[in-house]
Amino acid sequence: MHDKRPTIQTYFEDLQNRICAKFEEVDGVGKFREDRWSHAQGGGGITRIIQEGGIFEKGGVNTSAVTAQLSPLLAERMNVSPQTIFACGISLVLHPRSPIVPTAHANFRYLELENGDFWFGGGADLTPYYLFEEDARLFHNVWKSVCDQYEPSYYARFKKACDEYFYIKHRREARGIGGIFFDYLRGDFGQLFDFVRSCGDAFLSAYLPIVERRRNEPWGERQRQWQLIRRGRYVEFNLVYDRGTLFGLETEGRIESILMSLPPLVRWEYSHTPQPGTREEKLLSVLKEPRDWIAR
Amino acid sequence: MHDKRPTIQTYFEDLQNRICAKFEEVDGVGKFREDRWSHAQGGGGITRIIQEGGIFEKGGVNTSAVTAQLSPLLAERMNVSPQTIFACGISLVLHPRSPIVPTAHANFRYLELENGDFWFGGGADLTPYYLFEEDARLFHNVWKSVCDQYEPSYYARFKKACDEYFYIKHRREARGIGGIFFDYLRGDFGQLFDFVRSCGDAFLSAYLPIVERRRNEPWGERQRQWQLIRRGRYVEFNLVYDRGTLFGLETEGRIESILMSLPPLVRWEYSHTPQPGTREEKLLSVLKEPRDWIAR
Repeated sequence: MHDKRPTIQTYFEDLQNRICAKFEEVDGVGKFREDRWSHAQGGGGITRIIQEGGIFEKGGVNTSAVTAQLSPLLAERMNVSPQTIFACGISLVLHPRSPIVPTAHANFRYLELENGDFWFGGGADLTPYYLFEEDARLFHNVWKSVCDQYEPSYYARFKKACDEYFYIKHRREARGIGGIFFDYLRGDFGQLFDFVRSCGDAFLSAYLPIVERRRNEPWGERQRQWQLIRRGRYVEFNLVYDRGTLFGLETEGRIESILMSLPPLVRWEYSHTPQPGTREEKLLSVLKEPRDWIAR
Repeated sequence: MHDKRPTIQTYFEDLQNRICAKFEEVDGVGKFREDRWSHAQGGGGITRIIQEGGIFEKGGVNTSAVTAQLSPLLAERMNVSPQTIFACGISLVLHPRSPIVPTAHANFRYLELENGDFWFGGGADLTPYYLFEEDARLFHNVWKSVCDQYEPSYYARFKKACDEYFYIKHRREARGIGGIFFDYLRGDFGQLFDFVRSCGDAFLSAYLPIVERRRNEPWGERQRQWQLIRRGRYVEFNLVYDRGTLFGLETEGRIESILMSLPPLVRWEYSHTPQPGTREEKLLSVLKEPRDWIAR
């Protein structure tokens, strides 16, 4: 049963190469720094980080393939008995310097239990600081197209799951404008792997057109401060709620690779509230109430 | 049995007044903004925040007295059955702008169950960005003096508990150089309340001499960047591990009051590691291995 593992790992590492090469090309200035690491319990990963680029203030595109002992807490959350689990995936987060360019996140992963049971999880979501409806539509339409090739119900289910997952409960607002999210996707390995590959291959086409559209738009100190405050919400979500972060911390993963998702510079200001009628308030209103972004 | 409640609340609110007045005097520029709020389930609080002061970039001195329904998670952590609990306390965090002046935190609280059982919790700890051993000794000696007036074993126990509590497990380092920490302190109400009052009254004498000593020391961009990175660790601790933060989020407390503890500006840089022999590395080495700060 173990021949699935190298196949998947090879795909994720190839995707990592393609995505990093493209981001370096688009960024023009930044280069990814690579760190290869080993997990104490088996396996390891390839971490690639870009910092202080032309477009990307900070970003990471990581792959890992580890065998790790599940803690009782994690086993309970996964509804399996404590055991050694195989986890292989790609995880990426891009934090542009411009507040006009949204932050993007994607993660695709394969998990396998000792008895050979397996599932896929993953998704991609967008976190704008200023809302451009055409960008949100473009992003969602890409994921709908991918989903529709496999299963008509996927997009609606995974869009809803994304809105529910990337929800900052204590703020009563979403982290961003969503995308797709799925977990415990079980079934025929070949079909599911095809679907996940299509998702991975689609990421650049969902995000780069938005980067290209927005990269040259002007912005100033007001927009920057708003971005720093919104990045605080990103941190709150990732450290308080994100399962992937928790999984990494609980399985004693490589901390710097797990926390690469945190933005480079962040502000917490007491009771910051946008003025009514501003673009900042418009973003918040969309984060309070998820929308349907598919043109009918 | 309920007459303990107003006595304690009055003390904490008086302490809040005294601490805020003194901080405004020392700061010289900043003024505390006050927000009074009500808890959905009963009671409320007084939040006082200083931002962009002369010394304090951000700080909060909060009191609250609430009755809140324990979630099953919280009840389990407290080892009691789910019920309505009364919680009253003061919580303060000061983030100076200068990286040479340490961040200080203190919290004192009283909890009471439906059946009248009660306990006190609290403590005070210091988070320097640069280590001055005489400051660490001063801070710890104040708390030792307070503890020694009540029970010879207190300081050693509470110092150890503080080192254990303010530990960032995933970084394998302490948040700061400690202080004292106690929880579930049960016994004679009068004696315990006296002890907690002595702690509250001692806070200014433990922290202000350090602020006064360090406020005029020069610093530059290198020190500032190090402070921003260390503040990231502060955020990691508070959002991932802090029981008080979790208690607030789980009991649907007032978010802006709970998260006032987060620093105003924070940086996450990938794999930042101080050079050997630097003052930054010296701080880290102390955070990796707690020290005894009491002169023998």
